[in-house]
Amino acid sequence: MQELKITAINPEMDEAIQKKIDLKTKPLGALGTLEKIAFKVSRIQQSTGPQLINPAILVCAGDHGITQENVSPFPQEVTFQMVMNFLGGGAAINVFCRQHNIKLLVADTGVNFDFETNKQLLDYKIRKGTRNFAIEPAMTRLECEAAMINGANIIEQLNIEGTNIVGFGEMGIGNTTSATALLCKFAHLTPHQATGAGTGLDEEGIRHKAEVIEKALSHHKNIKAPIDILATFGGYEIATICGAILKAAELKMTILSDGFIATSALIAAHAMHPEILHYCLFAHQSNEQGHKLMLKHLNADPILHLEMRLGEGTGSAVVYPLVQSAVHFMNEMSSFDDAGVSNKD
Amino acid sequence: MQELKITAINPEMDEAIQKKIDLKTKPLGALGTLEKIAFKVSRIQQSTGPQLINPAILVCAGDHGITQENVSPFPQEVTFQMVMNFLGGGAAINVFCRQHNIKLLVADTGVNFDFETNKQLLDYKIRKGTRNFAIEPAMTRLECEAAMINGANIIEQLNIEGTNIVGFGEMGIGNTTSATALLCKFAHLTPHQATGAGTGLDEEGIRHKAEVIEKALSHHKNIKAPIDILATFGGYEIATICGAILKAAELKMTILSDGFIATSALIAAHAMHPEILHYCLFAHQSNEQGHKLMLKHLNADPILHLEMRLGEGTGSAVVYPLVQSAVHFMNEMSSFDDAGVSNKD
Repeated sequence: MQELKITAINPEMDEAIQKKIDLKTKPLGALGTLEKIAFKVSRIQQSTGPQLINPAILVCAGDHGITQENVSPFPQEVTFQMVMNFLGGGAAINVFCRQHNIKLLVADTGVNFDFETNKQLLDYKIRKGTRNFAIEPAMTRLECEAAMINGANIIEQLNIEGTNIVGFGEMGIGNTTSATALLCKFAHLTPHQATGAGTGLDEEGIRHKAEVIEKALSHHKNIKAPIDILATFGGYEIATICGAILKAAELKMTILSDGFIATSALIAAHAMHPEILHYCLFAHQSNEQGHKLMLKHLNADPILHLEMRLGEGTGSAVVYPLVQSAVHFMNEMSSFDDAGVSNKD
Repeated sequence: MQELKITAINPEMDEAIQKKIDLKTKPLGALGTLEKIAFKVSRIQQSTGPQLINPAILVCAGDHGITQENVSPFPQEVTFQMVMNFLGGGAAINVFCRQHNIKLLVADTGVNFDFETNKQLLDYKIRKGTRNFAIEPAMTRLECEAAMINGANIIEQLNIEGTNIVGFGEMGIGNTTSATALLCKFAHLTPHQATGAGTGLDEEGIRHKAEVIEKALSHHKNIKAPIDILATFGGYEIATICGAILKAAELKMTILSDGFIATSALIAAHAMHPEILHYCLFAHQSNEQGHKLMLKHLNADPILHLEMRLGEGTGSAVVYPLVQSAVHFMNEMSSFDDAGVSNKD
């Protein structure tokens, strides 16, 4: 991997940004979370007149060897079928991206299927699915790094096109198992605490999934470096998103962090470069058990609490108009002086 | 008041609506609150293909005699100044309505100011501010009914123009005191439980406001009928919104319930016609102390938790794209069959 230059944000402009927010025609703090979003985006852009340009969501798809352990109620073929659904425009993420004029990029990072060439599908396939991490590392370190570089390259291209805000989604049957293992390693939790229902396991299924993760963690217990943790328990889509997040932070984009899987990529990126948090908004708190624990680990405040647990980047897409609202009020709303409104005594 | 025909919704279509939601290409329930919104709007419209047509937000402004008791940190003139700000397009509600192409109606229902004629400002002024309800009823019963009829007429006109979803906002220095008194009467709470900071009172200010309300409740303790409670403690803007909500429910529109003041109108409407709840979505939970208690009283689940407390209908405006997302996924997202995706085993 190339050396990344991810820098903490200089707080020099903070006061000017906060002052502009406070002088808008409203009681102090009355726009709540929207004010926090406005502050953060302004800070990232080092501007009191922030702009959202060419928003994009990158959805990465990959398959997982761990499905051999019966950890999902859906068959593996659903991964490629859902990729076809993305390309056909019929998935939830398509609907929400169309609604908000968000550019949707779909990347095959490691799906166990031979797609016909389709210029709508970015071909970043490393391998047709990861290995079963109950037995061996999911990826080699080289494969993991290659996936991360792919993610970085996609973001560089978006940056050239002017994009300054990006969200991440995923599709991969079995990937809540990977995300749970990553959460356990990075946040020092047990599978018992971190394992949830994924796409819809019953209690017995959740118990089995936690056991599979428990055994795998024990099998690979000496893995320490973040990149090795990611390679061992992650997936191609997770590593690609991780590399993309790091590059987006380097390029000072606003990063929309999404649900359980996308946030597992973010906690890996965070372990490598904690400064990325300066560039992140947390779209929502998912209904998946472990997501709340991830947000706690990152000390992050999610914007939405909609009990969603779909993935695909849907949380980032539905939160996008709220980020727009925050930016719009910064730019368009009158100050007390502009409007001739008396401020508080 | 004309007799209203507000009817509970026939549950006959519920199963077909839920089935359509469940067969979309996603794990069961994975769109969380968006699924509940889709269900509710579909049910109101009695259609599995709901549409949002000509969305509108009605902002009603009125002044309050209770400001004589020193219950707000802002001077009364801010009411008319903010109305001018609405007309100039510089308030938060203007920004968010422009963003989402929501028609914004601003009505003077009782502002203590002589506006020049302006076709952007609906003139429904009953009187230049209510009376001080610490001493006498805020409105006469006839004034209150006239305000309610005005609200109903505005909604009838919107209905003729095709509008099928409407939100309500308000502006009126002193109106959190009215809303708190209404909450206490309708939900049988004490001012100590229900009184909050409004536009920014400190602890001493909140204590004083609670005392003012306590005395007023005791002074008018024999008032029982919902319309009399509304007349005694409400305001012209609150009564106008109350009448508008009732008419919107009669016309089977989707009603976006907003923050503390707009919801005080809704609890009054609810006391008159409990069936209105079939037509309501609750936009957000405000940061104003009493709003949570109102939502509890109505057994309502708010969609957003953004710690907003601005009024003006801003909660309804910022939640609107999420309601759109719900309707769009109902209409545009593929089913498992459409997309050739395998469902759960």
